Amino acid sequence: MPDAQQIQEAFKDVQDRICDFLNEENGQPYLEDLWDYDKGSGGGRTRVWENGPLLEKGGVNFSGLRGESMPQSAAAEIEIPVDTPFLATGVSLVIHPWSPHVPTIHMNLRYFEAGGAWWFGGGIDLTPTYPVLGQVVEFHQALKAICDESGYSYDEHKKSCDEYFFLKHRGETRGIGGTFFDHLRDDKDKAFAYCLNLGMAFPNLYRPFTEANREKPTTDAQREFQLYRRGRYVEFNLIYDRGTTFGLQSRGRTESIMMSLPATATWRYNWHPEPGTPEHELTDFYLKPQDWVNMTPNG
Amino acid sequence: MPDAQQIQEAFKDVQDRICDFLNEENGQPYLEDLWDYDKGSGGGRTRVWENGPLLEKGGVNFSGLRGESMPQSAAAEIEIPVDTPFLATGVSLVIHPWSPHVPTIHMNLRYFEAGGAWWFGGGIDLTPTYPVLGQVVEFHQALKAICDESGYSYDEHKKSCDEYFFLKHRGETRGIGGTFFDHLRDDKDKAFAYCLNLGMAFPNLYRPFTEANREKPTTDAQREFQLYRRGRYVEFNLIYDRGTTFGLQSRGRTESIMMSLPATATWRYNWHPEPGTPEHELTDFYLKPQDWVNMTPNG
Repeated sequence: MPDAQQIQEAFKDVQDRICDFLNEENGQPYLEDLWDYDKGSGGGRTRVWENGPLLEKGGVNFSGLRGESMPQSAAAEIEIPVDTPFLATGVSLVIHPWSPHVPTIHMNLRYFEAGGAWWFGGGIDLTPTYPVLGQVVEFHQALKAICDESGYSYDEHKKSCDEYFFLKHRGETRGIGGTFFDHLRDDKDKAFAYCLNLGMAFPNLYRPFTEANREKPTTDAQREFQLYRRGRYVEFNLIYDRGTTFGLQSRGRTESIMMSLPATATWRYNWHPEPGTPEHELTDFYLKPQDWVNMTPNG
Repeated sequence: MPDAQQIQEAFKDVQDRICDFLNEENGQPYLEDLWDYDKGSGGGRTRVWENGPLLEKGGVNFSGLRGESMPQSAAAEIEIPVDTPFLATGVSLVIHPWSPHVPTIHMNLRYFEAGGAWWFGGGIDLTPTYPVLGQVVEFHQALKAICDESGYSYDEHKKSCDEYFFLKHRGETRGIGGTFFDHLRDDKDKAFAYCLNLGMAFPNLYRPFTEANREKPTTDAQREFQLYRRGRYVEFNLIYDRGTTFGLQSRGRTESIMMSLPATATWRYNWHPEPGTPEHELTDFYLKPQDWVNMTPNG
């Protein structure tokens, strides 16, 4: 069975693999900050792209922390007292490309130890502004293959993703979903392998979206709509996201937590797209849970 | 003693007075939406400016709601069970001018009844990007005069404002403060009069900032810094603000709650202004609680 040290090293490898891929896609390398967790021991390495050829803003963060007191948000979920020492390690990324045709993507893999227990969590989800149905279906089919191969239920983890990445106050999902899982503690080797399978698959999961869409021309109106939708991304991350809550409550490094926010977000009062437009189809169809893997594009 | 109906009518008058003033300042009238509270009875009137000559985005909202079940956020504070019927009425405003030299301002006045109790809350606070010390001092002196006249302690309400409008994860206040009070239940006539004094004073409190600053020229760098600071405003409102939390938990009208957000906000990874610049002075001096009323500008 892997110990915490091995898991941390494997998460660092995942970060390296993903960063190599994104450096190549972006055509400009990341900037790295190494930091210490000043409320306990450990620290992290934050890697960021800003104003790159492909990436308007994005980051891949690794952290490995030990603290004396589990943050409230995490402790409550698994009924562990707040004053329990904890170990938390994970890799998380959010990528916001310039082009409204290349989706924002988020992935997170994490491992906790506290109160004699251990568990894994994580997931991946996609937030397109102008989705292409065939690409969405293929993304979900690839995730299903990873779940099948790893011995976990795609249906369950897909459903958890739809439920978790949901903006109650807007009545819409954050994007077209993906997979999400938490408190995986059935079998340490199996859960660990699942996390690594997912992490190492990232380049193959995201490349189809950059390859097919990055050269598409963009109108000003499409860019404006993208920035408007990024307002929803900010709303989700600051109101609902447990990673953000955990980070802020554990007094983690603020800039590494806020790294997930887009470069620019806009809000317009009570604005709604016209029915029949792609912008309307986004909320009307794509931002409602769908049975993607069984859909036939252009069928 | 005023009853709930009289208080609601007075809050509507406050909304009217403030909207007349802002229409004139802006040179373009608000757009109004009347809405019903579909989770209970009552409703509100939301008045909004967007892309006006002075105001990039702003709104003044009145609402008067009755519901069957007090939202958790409000119930916990005063130890009232969650399933208690409640009445909530209030007027709130957030104004985001185009010019980085004209501050963002927020005011809120509210009245609650639940579980046989009643209480008032409210306050006003200012968020400048490029503050002028003399104007800040005069703003606080005017607030002190309102407190003195109304029989409440400026020192207490000023301190509450500094404590409430504080971004823990950034170690900075939202702006240069003002006054903030909650659970005022000492004397209904007195508390009501205080709220009205504050509400009706709004034009005189804000006019000095528009008059002195609206014609100042603005550089691109100043506008960029303003948008960056608006990111912090979004962070506060979505992470900490109890009005937003209450609104979302009571399943209020989302667009009226989110009205407080700026038109545009930006985030840059780990960016900090150079020491010696006005941008640095903002966080280094103005966004720390100061004894404004006893300061001598240019002294």
